[in-house]
Amino acid sequence: MRPRVRLTVSQTQTPPTTPSPSSALPITEEEIFAAHAGGKLAIDVTRPIHTSRDLSIAYTPGVAQVSRGIAADPALAETHTWASRLVAVVSDGTAVLGLGDIGASASLPVMEGKSALFKTFAGLNSIPIVLDTTDTDEIVETLVRIAPSFGAVNLEDVSAPRCFELERRLIEALDMPVMHDDQHGTAVVVAAALLGATRVVQKELTTLRVVISGAGAAGVAVAEMLLALDVPDVVILDSRGTLHPGREDLSGVKHDLALRTNPREIAGGTAEALAGADVFVGVSSSSLPEAHAAHMASDAIIFALSNPDPEIAPDVARRHAAVVATGRSDYPNQINNVLAFPGIFRGALDADARRITLPMKLAAVHAIAELAAPDLAPDRIVPSALDPRVAPAVAAAVMAAAQEA
Amino acid sequence: MRPRVRLTVSQTQTPPTTPSPSSALPITEEEIFAAHAGGKLAIDVTRPIHTSRDLSIAYTPGVAQVSRGIAADPALAETHTWASRLVAVVSDGTAVLGLGDIGASASLPVMEGKSALFKTFAGLNSIPIVLDTTDTDEIVETLVRIAPSFGAVNLEDVSAPRCFELERRLIEALDMPVMHDDQHGTAVVVAAALLGATRVVQKELTTLRVVISGAGAAGVAVAEMLLALDVPDVVILDSRGTLHPGREDLSGVKHDLALRTNPREIAGGTAEALAGADVFVGVSSSSLPEAHAAHMASDAIIFALSNPDPEIAPDVARRHAAVVATGRSDYPNQINNVLAFPGIFRGALDADARRITLPMKLAAVHAIAELAAPDLAPDRIVPSALDPRVAPAVAAAVMAAAQEA
Repeated sequence: MRPRVRLTVSQTQTPPTTPSPSSALPITEEEIFAAHAGGKLAIDVTRPIHTSRDLSIAYTPGVAQVSRGIAADPALAETHTWASRLVAVVSDGTAVLGLGDIGASASLPVMEGKSALFKTFAGLNSIPIVLDTTDTDEIVETLVRIAPSFGAVNLEDVSAPRCFELERRLIEALDMPVMHDDQHGTAVVVAAALLGATRVVQKELTTLRVVISGAGAAGVAVAEMLLALDVPDVVILDSRGTLHPGREDLSGVKHDLALRTNPREIAGGTAEALAGADVFVGVSSSSLPEAHAAHMASDAIIFALSNPDPEIAPDVARRHAAVVATGRSDYPNQINNVLAFPGIFRGALDADARRITLPMKLAAVHAIAELAAPDLAPDRIVPSALDPRVAPAVAAAVMAAAQEA
Repeated sequence: MRPRVRLTVSQTQTPPTTPSPSSALPITEEEIFAAHAGGKLAIDVTRPIHTSRDLSIAYTPGVAQVSRGIAADPALAETHTWASRLVAVVSDGTAVLGLGDIGASASLPVMEGKSALFKTFAGLNSIPIVLDTTDTDEIVETLVRIAPSFGAVNLEDVSAPRCFELERRLIEALDMPVMHDDQHGTAVVVAAALLGATRVVQKELTTLRVVISGAGAAGVAVAEMLLALDVPDVVILDSRGTLHPGREDLSGVKHDLALRTNPREIAGGTAEALAGADVFVGVSSSSLPEAHAAHMASDAIIFALSNPDPEIAPDVARRHAAVVATGRSDYPNQINNVLAFPGIFRGALDADARRITLPMKLAAVHAIAELAAPDLAPDRIVPSALDPRVAPAVAAAVMAAAQEA
């Protein structure tokens, strides 16, 4: 039996809150490029082929029985190929991170990273499919033609407003879960973080004034999610100011949202919108002046989510807000989509769901929030992006919601 | 130093020609379906993501530097994503094994098997892409649109004569190695086996009379390969008899081959073609009557390659031929494409070749034949399909041929 004193010593040697020397070193460009050399994914064979018998089973003549079986009963493809649980991570490279329209090949490292996270956190196989076309019709047509190759689509880094129509049409055209993660993954994590933050400051979602800076993929989806959660006063800012019905330059999704948000019909910019607001959600890469943050309500919440440069420096934001979150791993309260998408897709596939519905996304919100609940604090409103409990909990909640429908 | 007697004992204990008890048991349907359950492939992450630092390097913010790097210098995509060495195993499911047009989903187990063999024998990553269209224009268009996702195309199980135009157009449209394996993989392995067989019977390729039964993907490619190897007398049979210039029902590839083969202008069927022939190559699923085999030349060579049922039973064929080969693993002399395609693609990718040329295919033929040369015998004209030396030897020869061009 191990003496008790040794255990204590051992714990003291590796305190969980002290960063290890290696993680404290700055990450160099050389280190990053070395880690991406050759790509970040590989194919693994689930059953090794060593003998002539293995070859006869995995390939000819044995494989003919499986192919014949699927031809006779297409449902067998669900159980006897990898496709039905394979996620295609699809991008046309038009809105890659904060880098903009840099093209399909340049988007590939991000899509490989996404596939690596799917595997790491949810045990899901996925392959990057990057497209050398930005035409919505052509993208839909292309994915429909290769659809027997996979079982779900994670749409990624597609520019707004094209992304709204593209996602809608893919959901109609493909008999499988389709989700644009920049919209819904972000919305789920932001909503979960907002649940945590409002509990910390003891406010209710149903009394909040929320300002969302950005009316692109993330801003629109966050707004829709907050409306679904009955947040009564949501004001959205685009580059020309607040969305409101009096604006004549709005169409499509923005026009629709202008009719359903901004109940006090605030016109103007960030200053007007933020006066007395409880929450700022920044997903726009624009900057938030300290003077505007200073006019928010007491116990304000600031999510400055643009990467790598938050809309306002966290230490500045803290002067005016009780809770501050960013998208970065080097500050507290990292709001990162990796908390959501692996579990959402895993739950949808485990449930054999054909759609990722609002109830499934809300289930993910609450599952993430519940994991943070026991330890809530101003700098602990969401679980760690690396917390291995998150994806299984989200998957279970999403699967249950899918099965209730 | 190991005593010599021990080495001898060790060799005696594991004689290479005695099948192990497990491989002697018949393979059951249950065993096959169990081995394919869930599919045969998985995604592996090349660098594990355990820490916040790992996440910052593999995903945001680190990945942005790699994406920005590729946007500035597209050549970086070759070295810093998996795509440039990833083989797409592409099929429209129109000619799956001997099962015919059973569709994309039913072809998937074969494509997964092919990917498993690419990994096992050549260490190459590959992904199945199966197409829900059989229109040549649409297939080309689709692959061009997703081309930034991969670095080579193994076309598979596409019906003739569409496969000839499809392969030609893909080679023109894609800036990467493209090969229809049912054509060229088969041709390379058949030619290598014919080199071995002719050495066994002490004949020369340049004096042979060869009859090819079948004018589909394999038959046409085998004929082209034998013409390239200066075999002087090649006669091709389709379902209506020998190809010759007098036939008015021929067009396209068959018409072209009728002008360049059959120098004695033999009309008629298998009987007429086989009289005095040195070699029969069956790639047609039709049967070869023993009476016709009986009229072949002395020291005849019979390759009855249809699977699972050879054109003539090997024990019957042996009454009239000095060398008999099949496509099956349970008879000697298995002529299996796995001897060729992994090494051909590996060599082409190692050489950064944009095309798989005839000199590269001929290099593969000779590399396979050379590995069989030291132990040649009537029942050992090709290396074992599992011989781990084959793919590296083929890859090295193909790479050298590519670099000479």
